[in-house]
Amino acid sequence: MNLILLTHDDIENDRLARVRDPRRLRHLREVHRATPGDRLTLGVVGGHIGQGELLTLCDQEATFALSPLDQAPPPPLPVHLVLALPRPRMLARTLEHVTALGVKQITLLHTRRVEKSYWMSPELTPEKIHHHLVLGLEQARDTLLPEVTLERGFRPFVEGRLPALLEGRRGLLAHPGMPSACPRGVEAPTLLLVGPEGGFIPWEVERLLEAGCEGIHLGQRILRVETAVTALLARLF
Amino acid sequence: MNLILLTHDDIENDRLARVRDPRRLRHLREVHRATPGDRLTLGVVGGHIGQGELLTLCDQEATFALSPLDQAPPPPLPVHLVLALPRPRMLARTLEHVTALGVKQITLLHTRRVEKSYWMSPELTPEKIHHHLVLGLEQARDTLLPEVTLERGFRPFVEGRLPALLEGRRGLLAHPGMPSACPRGVEAPTLLLVGPEGGFIPWEVERLLEAGCEGIHLGQRILRVETAVTALLARLF
Repeated sequence: MNLILLTHDDIENDRLARVRDPRRLRHLREVHRATPGDRLTLGVVGGHIGQGELLTLCDQEATFALSPLDQAPPPPLPVHLVLALPRPRMLARTLEHVTALGVKQITLLHTRRVEKSYWMSPELTPEKIHHHLVLGLEQARDTLLPEVTLERGFRPFVEGRLPALLEGRRGLLAHPGMPSACPRGVEAPTLLLVGPEGGFIPWEVERLLEAGCEGIHLGQRILRVETAVTALLARLF
Repeated sequence: MNLILLTHDDIENDRLARVRDPRRLRHLREVHRATPGDRLTLGVVGGHIGQGELLTLCDQEATFALSPLDQAPPPPLPVHLVLALPRPRMLARTLEHVTALGVKQITLLHTRRVEKSYWMSPELTPEKIHHHLVLGLEQARDTLLPEVTLERGFRPFVEGRLPALLEGRRGLLAHPGMPSACPRGVEAPTLLLVGPEGGFIPWEVERLLEAGCEGIHLGQRILRVETAVTALLARLF
């Protein structure tokens, strides 16, 4: 937690904030080992970043005197990430990694090799997803929550939603064996598609290429989804 | 497990291999759902890769008819990674990520902000480290085990061992706030140093820069060690 992310409910007025939830209180005590007088980095969800002085810390709440929160959060990556739904534990970690890296639009997609049971996981509840996004923002000192969309059918996604997503974006399909190496230093708006463990099936690859995506690869090595997504984002942008 | 990594003990003769450990047997049954007749990718620790046909699979062993194992493993990254010892769970995952990405030399280093208790963790036993390296190799279809060295003192490392490591290698110190952005597409042999959660302390940064390392950063975002290491390797190489 390199930034204490405040919701609008936490802000009493433009000089004072109160934090009451056990997770952040525990972190302040156990990781920051904060004591009154300490200056910490704060930010408001969707807004700016600045410093706050810890005034009080007890089991029920922490209060902060706010200096003007006037710094912009770090710039986002110009990417919409379409990720075949990973297994629940991998999903949790991947949401944290990609949020920390600056992804702001995430679509979780069903594909042939996604186990149907993954769609029933408690990790997909809005509260759980929100929790992992917040952890990613707190890590990277960011305030802008990503938008997460669930697409439970591959064909409806490709036929219905993909054409609009590709308007004004360069579509990149990351898949082992594609002809081109992953490009570096891309600045254009990008739609990046990443398959599940085991990959997209050939029929899916054909549909995505037909829709206008370019196939790219990261080399001979087969990587776990969370490693591959981080590696792709770091190489692309 | 995209490759079944055989030890020399598993190889009966150049036509037949036997796998007996519960982990690989369970994986063959539950993940591969392998049945006799299936052809799977096999490799020998430190050696070549090829195909094998599953002959038998029972609770005690699996036997494979080996085709000539004649493919080279994927090329390694030209890097020696010096990593401040992460907390145990992060260490386990990071070893898997970097092994899958092709790192072959890893030094785990004590620094001021590494908790001393991490050095007592069971994750640091040779057996546990070996286990995570094997998982990384199996993931990436590689056979060459990384070498892992433990350096329990920062000053002895910097004064004793670092000068030799920097002979013939470009030293890159990844640390937030350094003046240069992480370079891309490096091909020269590199020594990459990555600090702990909370970073190197200023005195450590000075010693590493004095020793001839260049300071590099990954941008404003502060990343978890496992995300940062993957992102650095993917951007550098």
